[in-house]
Amino acid sequence: MHKQKFARESEVIMTEMVLPNDTNPLHNLMGGRMMHLIDIASAIAAQKHSNRIVVTASIDNVSFEQPVKLGNVITLRANVTRAFNSSMEVYVEVYAEDIPSGGKVLANKAFVTFVAVDQSGRPIMVPELMPETEAERQLYAGALRRRQLRLVLAGRMKPEEATELKSLFTISLVDQPAN
Amino acid sequence: MHKQKFARESEVIMTEMVLPNDTNPLHNLMGGRMMHLIDIASAIAAQKHSNRIVVTASIDNVSFEQPVKLGNVITLRANVTRAFNSSMEVYVEVYAEDIPSGGKVLANKAFVTFVAVDQSGRPIMVPELMPETEAERQLYAGALRRRQLRLVLAGRMKPEEATELKSLFTISLVDQPAN
Amino acid sequence: MHKQKFARESEVIMTEMVLPNDTNPLHNLMGGRMMHLIDIASAIAAQKHSNRIVVTASIDNVSFEQPVKLGNVITLRANVTRAFNSSMEVYVEVYAEDIPSGGKVLANKAFVTFVAVDQSGRPIMVPELMPETEAERQLYAGALRRRQLRLVLAGRMKPEEATELKSLFTISLVDQPAN
Amino acid sequence: MHKQKFARESEVIMTEMVLPNDTNPLHNLMGGRMMHLIDIASAIAAQKHSNRIVVTASIDNVSFEQPVKLGNVITLRANVTRAFNSSMEVYVEVYAEDIPSGGKVLANKAFVTFVAVDQSGRPIMVPELMPETEAERQLYAGALRRRQLRLVLAGRMKPEEATELKSLFTISLVDQPAN
Amino acid sequence: MHKQKFARESEVIMTEMVLPNDTNPLHNLMGGRMMHLIDIASAIAAQKHSNRIVVTASIDNVSFEQPVKLGNVITLRANVTRAFNSSMEVYVEVYAEDIPSGGKVLANKAFVTFVAVDQSGRPIMVPELMPETEAERQLYAGALRRRQLRLVLAGRMKPEEATELKSLFTISLVDQPAN
Amino acid sequence: MHKQKFARESEVIMTEMVLPNDTNPLHNLMGGRMMHLIDIASAIAAQKHSNRIVVTASIDNVSFEQPVKLGNVITLRANVTRAFNSSMEVYVEVYAEDIPSGGKVLANKAFVTFVAVDQSGRPIMVPELMPETEAERQLYAGALRRRQLRLVLAGRMKPEEATELKSLFTISLVDQPAN
Repeated sequence: MHKQKFARESEVIMTEMVLPNDTNPLHNLMGGRMMHLIDIASAIAAQKHSNRIVVTASIDNVSFEQPVKLGNVITLRANVTRAFNSSMEVYVEVYAEDIPSGGKVLANKAFVTFVAVDQSGRPIMVPELMPETEAERQLYAGALRRRQLRLVLAGRMKPEEATELKSLFTISLVDQPAN
Repeated sequence: MHKQKFARESEVIMTEMVLPNDTNPLHNLMGGRMMHLIDIASAIAAQKHSNRIVVTASIDNVSFEQPVKLGNVITLRANVTRAFNSSMEVYVEVYAEDIPSGGKVLANKAFVTFVAVDQSGRPIMVPELMPETEAERQLYAGALRRRQLRLVLAGRMKPEEATELKSLFTISLVDQPAN
Repeated sequence: MHKQKFARESEVIMTEMVLPNDTNPLHNLMGGRMMHLIDIASAIAAQKHSNRIVVTASIDNVSFEQPVKLGNVITLRANVTRAFNSSMEVYVEVYAEDIPSGGKVLANKAFVTFVAVDQSGRPIMVPELMPETEAERQLYAGALRRRQLRLVLAGRMKPEEATELKSLFTISLVDQPAN
Repeated sequence: MHKQKFARESEVIMTEMVLPNDTNPLHNLMGGRMMHLIDIASAIAAQKHSNRIVVTASIDNVSFEQPVKLGNVITLRANVTRAFNSSMEVYVEVYAEDIPSGGKVLANKAFVTFVAVDQSGRPIMVPELMPETEAERQLYAGALRRRQLRLVLAGRMKPEEATELKSLFTISLVDQPAN
Repeated sequence: MHKQKFARESEVIMTEMVLPNDTNPLHNLMGGRMMHLIDIASAIAAQKHSNRIVVTASIDNVSFEQPVKLGNVITLRANVTRAFNSSMEVYVEVYAEDIPSGGKVLANKAFVTFVAVDQSGRPIMVPELMPETEAERQLYAGALRRRQLRLVLAGRMKPEEATELKSLFTISLVDQPAN
Repeated sequence: MHKQKFARESEVIMTEMVLPNDTNPLHNLMGGRMMHLIDIASAIAAQKHSNRIVVTASIDNVSFEQPVKLGNVITLRANVTRAFNSSMEVYVEVYAEDIPSGGKVLANKAFVTFVAVDQSGRPIMVPELMPETEAERQLYAGALRRRQLRLVLAGRMKPEEATELKSLFTISLVDQPAN
């Protein structure tokens, strides 16, 4: 199969309320619970792109800058940015909203990669992703550089062979659409 | 306070069984559930080092190479590797064990950083970490380089100022004790 | 406050995977778990419309015609259809999707009503809802009839006073946009 | 099989404590969690009557008039009121109790219908229900009217054919034993 | 306060379905999950007797002789057997039922003791328990002997002072009503 | 198979944070949740000793003397103390720690027995346990007496045949290493 699919075909929106058991003693959402939600939302996006069972291959560095409070509503928006044979990179944004006050912030963003597998767990080809908008094209282009960084960090590529990654020292490391 | 503490003082060992709700349709542990456990184990290590409430600041790239099966026992081992003012880097290893067959593998490893805060959520100084063993010294030394990578990835440091990180292209990016 | 808001301002999309603990011995999603998700999605919609804490006042008759299977992805779409002083009616549609096969069905639809309350739990006025599209106008008009049915069922209105409801015997009882 | 069974043979009593994760920001039990418990209690009653796997067919309008607080003990009492071929109507009452103060209120009541199915999910005949007490006879008689309302609401019966339902405009719509 | 209450006033019936996450790899209910349910049911019984917050003081030896299977319905029946100042002994029976086959067995029985406390956690007097039936009188009488065994096991009574307990070697150790 | 194994080979350390849903209205860990954790930790120890699926056979009297608070970190340490054909006794200690204040107490200790079973649930022989340290030898010796007490309490041994148990009235009933 060599079908092509668009980023919007894999879009997933997920809404959750922050409950007491999700929070630390300051009543903030715990980082690990956020990661759990990010993994689920992005796994569904990868399933939609590939129409396959998918397994998480890696989660890129995630930083937590905005505390998310008990009672907040969080909205995750995820879609595939690029496919490589049997693997897919998914970009996820997480918004946190204090509905009574009306405040809404971008709480987190993450890149998660998945491998599509068959019923016995063997990797299987997925459709190519075709970027359509300018923001999608930027994410598509940056996916190559992020992939090299993952391979270098996992010890599977020598840093000197990471040709795309070298530009890391001259241009912005992670391109995202302006929010 | 300018106390010093040892890595072994923050060691945390956590054991869990993989239950049905933690698994995907292939009966493998979902990546997000693993991240949740990694965050809890490392948060407790950071609490033990600082004797404070801690909040997750970032989780470095995690890759999932070994599927962990339903019914497996997983053991997480975490300790602080280095402290910087109010922040601490924690190193976590996750082992998965199929007890009837006796097989045990290193399923994941991760670096998670935390900030110690007071009751109002303001950052507060933590004790320095004093490495004792050779493995601890390697993790301590590498912490500076990993910190620069986090700052560059978060857009808070210019790549050309990441003097430690530059060695990334000549020496191994992530140093861990041999397992 | 006598603000007006649009239906689209309260739209909520929620995506969930059906996990083992959500299912009965036939591996179908249990009805009560579905109701739980319907209540959460529609409560968030009512919060978005009113910017208030909301409490569930009633859930109209829900019928379960499509079994939803373990591993399915379910998507709930909810928005406010009409406001009455401190109460709001929310319409929710639930889609179930077997991603590997690509099949997607409308599994359930429901009308849930909420009351906006202040911090002491007392009812408080909410903005009016202004329907924009033809489908929104149909839902807005039908809300009056559904409200009378609720009042009659709860024993708070005499059937003979339910002037709108009488048309129930001549025109379709529940108007929904064609799916 | 054409056995007959009594209402008391399907009686189910279920007791639960309201825990933090079941509550909203006012520390009241969320409506959807209540629905979840109602569905479980009534499903067990339908299983007891039919000695079969059962699937939820519909849940009638439920209204929430009494807030149930964190720490309250809730008691659900359910039994089958009438059987129709492979389907059963179950009546559920929910009491909420603040044990330290001794207060106990009827918090909710609901009618839930189930279909008994075989291992492949196909509908299968269930025993008839024989009402014994006056309260059981009232619930048995009213079941026909409530069934017509469900069919009309689901668009499967024309309102003008709902001969029993017409009495809705002259006598009380929902008959329940005095509590 | 020196009120007296009957055993039947504290009776609690709790019904639960065994879900996948409650079971081990043989699909049997895990012992710890059973203990969790036993503690909740008996805590509610102790609350009903004392109209107070209660804390678990001890759980007597529980043996697990009957496997309880996934999908079984379990019914717990608990009531206070005797009160001593601020403490109460509760007797719990657990029945497991495979509804399709109609089989029902006594899966477990347990004695759990609770202390009634005020809002600051200090022990507070509870009403006396008055046994009415022959079975209740047997449980009431045996409570003294079981209490001495607990005190000896906890190292708070010298075995030679356990006058009631000595009869343990001549008459049946644990008296329960015939089931 | 007639292998021998050491106590340290079955050691399990489990760390957990006390979350809101685990606590009662005084914000103390509920006894049943503690029992659940004790059962899981000791089941893993018994699995490690036997390399088999294990089922809980009995949990000895547990007393709760130290309240464990919301936010505390609890650490369970478990290992097999002695094996008898297909059954194993496991000793578990539970420590509770208030990390900000640095306080750490022995909150509970328990003896749990398990039976190793094959895939059809039939008991199967396990390796003998060889005590090495003085504390292990004491636990090994006391296991015989505790086993007789369990058999007498379960009505499977006549008190007069419990030769080891008789010493109960002259020496300490439960020997544990000094903590």
